[in-house]
Amino acid sequence: MPDLQAVVQEIAAEMAQRPDRGEVAHYIPELARVDPQLFGIAVIDADGRAAVGGDADVPFSIQSISKVFTLTLALGMIGDRLWQRVGREPSGNPFNSIVQLERERGVPRNPFINAGAIAVTDVIASGHQPRESLGEILRFMQSLARDPTITIDGAVAASEKRTGFRNTALANYMKSFGVVEGPVDYTLGVYFHHCAIAMTCRQLATAGRYLAHSGRDPATGYSVVPAERAKRINALMLTCGHYDGSGEFAYRVGLPGKSGVGGGILAVAPGKASIAVWAPGLDAAGNSHLGRIALERLTKRMSWSIFGD
Amino acid sequence: MPDLQAVVQEIAAEMAQRPDRGEVAHYIPELARVDPQLFGIAVIDADGRAAVGGDADVPFSIQSISKVFTLTLALGMIGDRLWQRVGREPSGNPFNSIVQLERERGVPRNPFINAGAIAVTDVIASGHQPRESLGEILRFMQSLARDPTITIDGAVAASEKRTGFRNTALANYMKSFGVVEGPVDYTLGVYFHHCAIAMTCRQLATAGRYLAHSGRDPATGYSVVPAERAKRINALMLTCGHYDGSGEFAYRVGLPGKSGVGGGILAVAPGKASIAVWAPGLDAAGNSHLGRIALERLTKRMSWSIFGD
Amino acid sequence: MPDLQAVVQEIAAEMAQRPDRGEVAHYIPELARVDPQLFGIAVIDADGRAAVGGDADVPFSIQSISKVFTLTLALGMIGDRLWQRVGREPSGNPFNSIVQLERERGVPRNPFINAGAIAVTDVIASGHQPRESLGEILRFMQSLARDPTITIDGAVAASEKRTGFRNTALANYMKSFGVVEGPVDYTLGVYFHHCAIAMTCRQLATAGRYLAHSGRDPATGYSVVPAERAKRINALMLTCGHYDGSGEFAYRVGLPGKSGVGGGILAVAPGKASIAVWAPGLDAAGNSHLGRIALERLTKRMSWSIFGD
Amino acid sequence: MPDLQAVVQEIAAEMAQRPDRGEVAHYIPELARVDPQLFGIAVIDADGRAAVGGDADVPFSIQSISKVFTLTLALGMIGDRLWQRVGREPSGNPFNSIVQLERERGVPRNPFINAGAIAVTDVIASGHQPRESLGEILRFMQSLARDPTITIDGAVAASEKRTGFRNTALANYMKSFGVVEGPVDYTLGVYFHHCAIAMTCRQLATAGRYLAHSGRDPATGYSVVPAERAKRINALMLTCGHYDGSGEFAYRVGLPGKSGVGGGILAVAPGKASIAVWAPGLDAAGNSHLGRIALERLTKRMSWSIFGD
Repeated sequence: MPDLQAVVQEIAAEMAQRPDRGEVAHYIPELARVDPQLFGIAVIDADGRAAVGGDADVPFSIQSISKVFTLTLALGMIGDRLWQRVGREPSGNPFNSIVQLERERGVPRNPFINAGAIAVTDVIASGHQPRESLGEILRFMQSLARDPTITIDGAVAASEKRTGFRNTALANYMKSFGVVEGPVDYTLGVYFHHCAIAMTCRQLATAGRYLAHSGRDPATGYSVVPAERAKRINALMLTCGHYDGSGEFAYRVGLPGKSGVGGGILAVAPGKASIAVWAPGLDAAGNSHLGRIALERLTKRMSWSIFGD
Repeated sequence: MPDLQAVVQEIAAEMAQRPDRGEVAHYIPELARVDPQLFGIAVIDADGRAAVGGDADVPFSIQSISKVFTLTLALGMIGDRLWQRVGREPSGNPFNSIVQLERERGVPRNPFINAGAIAVTDVIASGHQPRESLGEILRFMQSLARDPTITIDGAVAASEKRTGFRNTALANYMKSFGVVEGPVDYTLGVYFHHCAIAMTCRQLATAGRYLAHSGRDPATGYSVVPAERAKRINALMLTCGHYDGSGEFAYRVGLPGKSGVGGGILAVAPGKASIAVWAPGLDAAGNSHLGRIALERLTKRMSWSIFGD
Repeated sequence: MPDLQAVVQEIAAEMAQRPDRGEVAHYIPELARVDPQLFGIAVIDADGRAAVGGDADVPFSIQSISKVFTLTLALGMIGDRLWQRVGREPSGNPFNSIVQLERERGVPRNPFINAGAIAVTDVIASGHQPRESLGEILRFMQSLARDPTITIDGAVAASEKRTGFRNTALANYMKSFGVVEGPVDYTLGVYFHHCAIAMTCRQLATAGRYLAHSGRDPATGYSVVPAERAKRINALMLTCGHYDGSGEFAYRVGLPGKSGVGGGILAVAPGKASIAVWAPGLDAAGNSHLGRIALERLTKRMSWSIFGD
Repeated sequence: MPDLQAVVQEIAAEMAQRPDRGEVAHYIPELARVDPQLFGIAVIDADGRAAVGGDADVPFSIQSISKVFTLTLALGMIGDRLWQRVGREPSGNPFNSIVQLERERGVPRNPFINAGAIAVTDVIASGHQPRESLGEILRFMQSLARDPTITIDGAVAASEKRTGFRNTALANYMKSFGVVEGPVDYTLGVYFHHCAIAMTCRQLATAGRYLAHSGRDPATGYSVVPAERAKRINALMLTCGHYDGSGEFAYRVGLPGKSGVGGGILAVAPGKASIAVWAPGLDAAGNSHLGRIALERLTKRMSWSIFGD
């Protein structure tokens, strides 16, 4: 077994030098300003040892990676009833597609495309003021990452709200079928804000440890979710975590993972490690270009693919 | 760790008794006649020990499970050039859908939906007489299963040919885009016949061992495919192996698997076992109803899910 | 030539008695309360003679029929530049479909499906307060119908606004592509209100005369639109005026016509007459069931089909 | 009223000189060889007077224009039962699209898209040898055009058969739903051949006269179809005759018309004239570029639009 710290350093060094850096997301003005030269990686193994490289302690907008945690929260609230409102199949369409909603009466294909994540947020937001729901999500993240300083980047949230017409369309569309139950403005407000949570790779990898370890945070022994549920969230990340690039990610990386348009990816090597990478430039499917390559290197060097050695 | 043989027996006993048996495929008359009470399971572990239950030695029509092996063959022939003709993403549509082909200029989403498998067969059939290509596929199966008696059920192949209008439509459609290169009749002839290969659970589980063991057949030490390729075929099985029920299969079973409308499923527990189950009744997505439940039991009892303990 | 007044009376008598009355639109609560027994018809010939029957003087919610008049206004404002924002082809999809918008980058197929009509309204509303734009539309209708008492039913508009999630989705979706330019709330406010204009069959038939007479109102000699444009609006009504029932309407009635979910239809027999019918019950495609049958009777009896005697 | 002969001459002169000639269809090799400089027009008025211009007596491949006549024949055979197998709505998709077939269980949207025309041909071909069915269609054309020398261009038919993979896909797809009943090869054989009928503008305009005159051929007084049916065929031509350019054709020309990829268009001015134009270059929707412009000129000059003066 190669030395994890050395492997992480090599990867960080390679990524720092590569000229191909993808395209920084420009649809949210605040994200467009991020420097594409940045790259961070943090890997936390089963024993809690962190191997970090590059800009592992620079916070970035986690964006859709937050959907893993809101899914966890919503399942904790209403359990399998959630699946009446959102499916569990890959969509075969881009992250912001509305086509399938029409054909399937407003029920999104899975909790990781935008429509599905909005429906999940609606479950969390239901019956609360947006501020309360957001507080709950944020406290959950702080607790998992064991860092109370994690905050929401208000400028990103405001920027997203101002320009989030497609998400507004998705939410209203689902509302017309009763899949979104609460006031659209409330649900979207919470959604835009939890996507704007800023975290470092180190914080994110820490927060994701329960998924790598049967639902239990090894640092505290505290069970975040039952083991069965952790496995299932991982399965969803594998099949749906990278939109219409999910097949490619499974094929090349071989780990459950969830990407965000901020350029972050949270990946899980079950039983072995929780991993966060960050590189702001995206590929055509909207996933971090170097982030994916870094994970490909890591799983290959460490023999961590879930599909075999 | 529970005793594998005991677990397999328990599962076979439960499946024999369950009243919910799904619907036997009726679109191929020859398949419609199969007794829905049949159930077979065979698990071959890393040491080559077989645990079998039920009708594990009764041959059935492997149908789309053959696509795993034709994919293996075609990759062996032209390597990654195959991906110019077929994608690697879940389709989000039923196995025989033609919609995506129109939008994506005749290139099927993945090698496991019908269109993709026909394109793969076209690669194998190219430049040969159908008889030669079929011979090659059959010899490959016999060699993997170490059983030269495996044959093609001619009545099933003929039945499929007579009624295979949708597959004929798919093949002609791809031909119009040049994705199928050979004569449509030749390619379809080979396709219908390799889907009609008859095998037992025991033979199938034996044939699938290279996927569980880094591309190498542990019985012979012979490398069928490079380790990298075995992982990638497993990834494709996980994301695309059950059509628009692939997400559900990953969520419930947590293993790479490929189903056929004959009611068989080949599943792979990387590093641990190759598994074949068979129960003729299908669910709404066209996958074996009891087969999936049996695998769910097995992975849970044996802690074999690739998504965590 | 049969006597128009007699024909109209016969039709009104038949429609009053028919048991098949369709389904009153229930998605807007205010419309759901309308009595399905009501039926009105008004035909105004080239000489200005009105033949009326049934409830021709009972006001109803004209709903989508207003789209003919907003199209006329918008073309008057920006001419053929309008066609950069909206197409001229039948959509082949229901009135509130969002599927095509995704495939065609936010440009609606034609000005009579909801998305297209919202884009047209956005042109009218651009740069004005909603109140001003609405005032302009209303004055246009009053002037065409030569009746200053025509008003907007505020309860219907409010009801539509409260439940108009799909229209809100459409507007936001187009906004994300820049096809809607103004504030979504303004544009939708104007849209919901002009759909809530209440008119009688007699008023509506009067208002539509310019379309039957080369763009000129025969009562005043005033040219509302150039003759060329009147023909083109008629062509659009023929091909797109009844959503995915447009082919059927052309096939059976053979006149340009525009329906509304309030149960009204405005139809035009070029050179001969302007016609309004109203029966609240709808068919499966959302068009007035008895309205269409009444028009079928009328064109047949009067030999008014544009497709031949 | 301007002099028809003079108008036709002017149009022919303008079309001969225009540099914009569209693109000759290249997907059938035999059609790709036709000289794009050719242009023909023939107009036959209610009194039987022919006004012709350009290459009005040069035969060309009528292609999809034949669908008007096969529809007429099939309606004569099984009447309105035809509509159980084919719809009457514009498709909103290209002529050879297969998408809608999947969604609508194999029933094509209308008789003028390829799938619909194949279903119509299947009705005619049913229970006969292809040679007999073709003979019947050809005799019908010869009789309507009053010219027994009209023949099928065998080279075009053979070319189409060799390359008609998409049509073969459509036919097999419908066969899988039972919408095509006969042997696919027979039905397609007849279809490819009737599309390969070669006619001149003069012959075609003569053949179309029954549609302009209430179903009756004014030359003989013979009723080809009931008046009601002639109107309905005209309505279908208006809404569906130019594929996804039908709205545009109605908007610009304002006459029922049917185009073919050979560059011909048959148009009908009800009560006034039967018109055939031919210019081999096509626009993006596959309709004759100059043919459409010539018809636009003609209807404007003659005030023949069905949508008003």
